[in-house]
Amino acid sequence: MKIKNIEGGVAAPEGYYAAGVRAGIKYKDKYDLAIIMSKVKAKAAAVYTRNLVKAHPLLLNMQHLTDGEAQAIVVNSGNANACMGEPGEKAALEMAVQTAKELGLKTEDILVASTGVIGQPMPMEKIIPGIAKAAASVQELLQTEPDRETKAGTAHEAALAIMTTDLVPKEKAYELECAEGTVKLGIIAKGSGMIHPNMGTMLCFITTDGAFDSEVLGKLLKEAVDKSFNMVTVDGDTSTNDMVLLLANGRSGIRPQGEELRQFREMLDHACVAMAKAIARDGEGATKLIEVQVNGAGTVKDAGQIVKSVCSSSLVKTAIYGQDANWGRILCAAGYSGAVFDPEGTSIYLNGLQVAQDGRAIPFSEDEALELLKNQEIVIRIDLKDGQENAVGWGCDLTHKYVDINADYRT
Amino acid sequence: MKIKNIEGGVAAPEGYYAAGVRAGIKYKDKYDLAIIMSKVKAKAAAVYTRNLVKAHPLLLNMQHLTDGEAQAIVVNSGNANACMGEPGEKAALEMAVQTAKELGLKTEDILVASTGVIGQPMPMEKIIPGIAKAAASVQELLQTEPDRETKAGTAHEAALAIMTTDLVPKEKAYELECAEGTVKLGIIAKGSGMIHPNMGTMLCFITTDGAFDSEVLGKLLKEAVDKSFNMVTVDGDTSTNDMVLLLANGRSGIRPQGEELRQFREMLDHACVAMAKAIARDGEGATKLIEVQVNGAGTVKDAGQIVKSVCSSSLVKTAIYGQDANWGRILCAAGYSGAVFDPEGTSIYLNGLQVAQDGRAIPFSEDEALELLKNQEIVIRIDLKDGQENAVGWGCDLTHKYVDINADYRT
Repeated sequence: MKIKNIEGGVAAPEGYYAAGVRAGIKYKDKYDLAIIMSKVKAKAAAVYTRNLVKAHPLLLNMQHLTDGEAQAIVVNSGNANACMGEPGEKAALEMAVQTAKELGLKTEDILVASTGVIGQPMPMEKIIPGIAKAAASVQELLQTEPDRETKAGTAHEAALAIMTTDLVPKEKAYELECAEGTVKLGIIAKGSGMIHPNMGTMLCFITTDGAFDSEVLGKLLKEAVDKSFNMVTVDGDTSTNDMVLLLANGRSGIRPQGEELRQFREMLDHACVAMAKAIARDGEGATKLIEVQVNGAGTVKDAGQIVKSVCSSSLVKTAIYGQDANWGRILCAAGYSGAVFDPEGTSIYLNGLQVAQDGRAIPFSEDEALELLKNQEIVIRIDLKDGQENAVGWGCDLTHKYVDINADYRT
Repeated sequence: MKIKNIEGGVAAPEGYYAAGVRAGIKYKDKYDLAIIMSKVKAKAAAVYTRNLVKAHPLLLNMQHLTDGEAQAIVVNSGNANACMGEPGEKAALEMAVQTAKELGLKTEDILVASTGVIGQPMPMEKIIPGIAKAAASVQELLQTEPDRETKAGTAHEAALAIMTTDLVPKEKAYELECAEGTVKLGIIAKGSGMIHPNMGTMLCFITTDGAFDSEVLGKLLKEAVDKSFNMVTVDGDTSTNDMVLLLANGRSGIRPQGEELRQFREMLDHACVAMAKAIARDGEGATKLIEVQVNGAGTVKDAGQIVKSVCSSSLVKTAIYGQDANWGRILCAAGYSGAVFDPEGTSIYLNGLQVAQDGRAIPFSEDEALELLKNQEIVIRIDLKDGQENAVGWGCDLTHKYVDINADYRT
């Protein structure tokens, strides 16, 4: 395998700089505003929420990405800038204008992202100084060309700044050995609540120093998102603000082709799946990561529907929380998924232990099941006998803490 | 209005008898087995779960209802008799055979229902004596023709016997004044967890002494279910066992036609909506009943989709639990419902207080909102400006107690 893990997050690839600051948007001492910048203009691709209601930054980015290029991303947590009408549109634009000004770039080369509560005015009196501070930090990095460690440190602050109810920052970086050098990829994400197939309040920013055409880049990103973020669910809600942005600045001097392009795609898929799993594991209040594998489905669509239905079932999620091998709820969730399959040919395994065969109960050791369900990672495998298609997705358990967190989020 | 509330539950209409007993199926002192019987063969209609996985009693009933007639219903709680293969089929049939034998009826005139945990063998050593006991009780009623109060008492025991995690029994009875006498209708239901549009673990049994053709009866029931049980959600799961059964024995001597048929339909709809609301109110762990009204939709389908999406949103449900006027989550859930509407023409009201206009924030008193959200009934009204169609549905809040109940249901 020519792909390896490296340090440095989104600033790991050549020619990227990132910084996070504490702007005091919602909490006093939390990193809450970040800028990610490429030294040169980059090809850019985006995937947005499928929610009919789209936050103001998303609508702005759609305009700014008509040329398929961008140079910097500005992002804040603590306020979603959604459902605010004209003042919301202005706030998103002002963030771009201010970031462009501070960094000496064009407004239309800035992408904007926000996450937090919906329907409240953006505190621009905090956002604008925050942008100035983050931009100054990025500018200093640009001018001093610091060592890898310093760059990694400020990139990590960017990963911190996009967190909301996340408990841990989510960042990774990878390197692919190509014939003429290495291509790097950095990624940060935030998730937690409201994550769903079709993306929950989920932000992900990806940087690479590989060189790609806009069209290839868009295709690569869409495919990776379908296999990763669109297969993760925390609570079944899909937010107004979700997006994944990918910048490719070509600074490695390498344009992957053929087998190398295939390997780059593998690296991108792997990075997105790693973030998707990290998001599920860090779901609001979650104590367990649930992976649902469906094998032997008649079609990919059927396999995917079953994965999503089982991952989303409140009854399955609470059973896993309670370490209860309640496979009936799993079969039941498959049954109402809308997928076509034969329940009487269905077998179910929990962390390798078979608990149902041909759609019915088989004897198994409850003690062994309980022991297996104490794991923090639960793999639910559902074997159909309808065909050759598979799907895999991720979710988390539904806990007391989830209710705690969401019963008083806004106030 | 010619429809009035009366006492007596499913035994209120002429010629019906019901009894519930403690068979010790899961708990020692809980009523858990019931029989409802008509003195004469009745026309019968049924609506079943749309889950691909159907419990054994449902499959049996489909056979028994090919002639559109039935005379008694036997139902147990504590075990769902689902996903058990041949032993499950046999258990359902044995329940019908035994009930028929005890009551002197034909096996194919018995309908069977079960609710409880999936994938565990039916404890027939408890079920069979339970059936004998309940049948004896019904036989005694038949022979002694007791007063209304006694009949109502044993019918109430039937309502108790079908409960699982329900906190309160759900029963009603109504009377419609017709030109030539009165037509009565009795109804009992159980719900609580796993309730969803398309029916959760939800059982409902309806009796009437009106006379109807099978075809009319089936149509009336389907329409009533669409407006009531299919518009209620507790946790988004749809069970393998849900069904609504309607018996019409004609003992009133009245066959409603024209305006009287319209009024009967109104009574049936009203009865089903009353049960649906009672089920939502009694949702597992619920502290509040949520009613979602969508007005001004372009199509009935769009209106219904938005209702269900908002009712099912974990984020809306926890916000209501937390008495938080978080309308952004409501608009967001409408946005991902799949319905076509214009978010920028959407206004939202919480118990009459407007909290959003044209898809955006408007100033409102947080104190007033908090005061209104302290109510045990929360009406979320969503006004679109897309057309003339409306829909209404019900759900409940998502609470700590829901997690308590479902984390250790099976064990």
